[in-house]
Amino acid sequence: MKEKNNFSVDFRIWFYAGEEKLLGKGRVELLERIKETGSIAQAAKEMNMSYRQAWQMVKEMNERAPNPLVEKQLGGKNGGGAIITKEGEKWIKLFYTVQKKINSYIKQEVKKINW
Amino acid sequence: MKEKNNFSVDFRIWFYAGEEKLLGKGRVELLERIKETGSIAQAAKEMNMSYRQAWQMVKEMNERAPNPLVEKQLGGKNGGGAIITKEGEKWIKLFYTVQKKINSYIKQEVKKINW
Repeated sequence: MKEKNNFSVDFRIWFYAGEEKLLGKGRVELLERIKETGSIAQAAKEMNMSYRQAWQMVKEMNERAPNPLVEKQLGGKNGGGAIITKEGEKWIKLFYTVQKKINSYIKQEVKKINW
Repeated sequence: MKEKNNFSVDFRIWFYAGEEKLLGKGRVELLERIKETGSIAQAAKEMNMSYRQAWQMVKEMNERAPNPLVEKQLGGKNGGGAIITKEGEKWIKLFYTVQKKINSYIKQEVKKINW
């Protein structure tokens, strides 16, 4: 019989807009890196994604949310920068809020489990 | 402004034994198919996995849980069958219980969100 009290529950969440994925952990990280670097290209690079993949994700988020989460800014080096909008900030915050709540709930439920 | 009230939260859970994955949705499905077919090979086939992959998963579950979840039975066609033990049944049930609870919690929390 192995040690019984080292079991735990991990989880991931995703936000959906209708049937379409709006946001998950990876996309939140992409938004945060765009915010930090001011550049979709740089954010993509840091996440070992192609610019095309990153831009596709940004495009989908922008289309699926009520308002765009990322705005491209023309000009400058590397073909212009990008910023996170208020809508983007809202979704990042909401993601972490929901994640934190679920984490607390699971922690509390896990204590009750008779593994 | 797009429709605001069609947002939802999806989730997945995983059980861990220490730092190692014990069980997730896919492994539960594998256990259920082994139970149904009485065969790891058949279960693997139904899930488009190789026997090797399926057996590796079973091996890990068996090693990481307090007792084996699957027992091989010698002989018979296809090199013998396999059964789900009481321990296996316990984990399948626990997985769905926890999943259901979290689902209820999320449903309730989602109603409070001002998307």
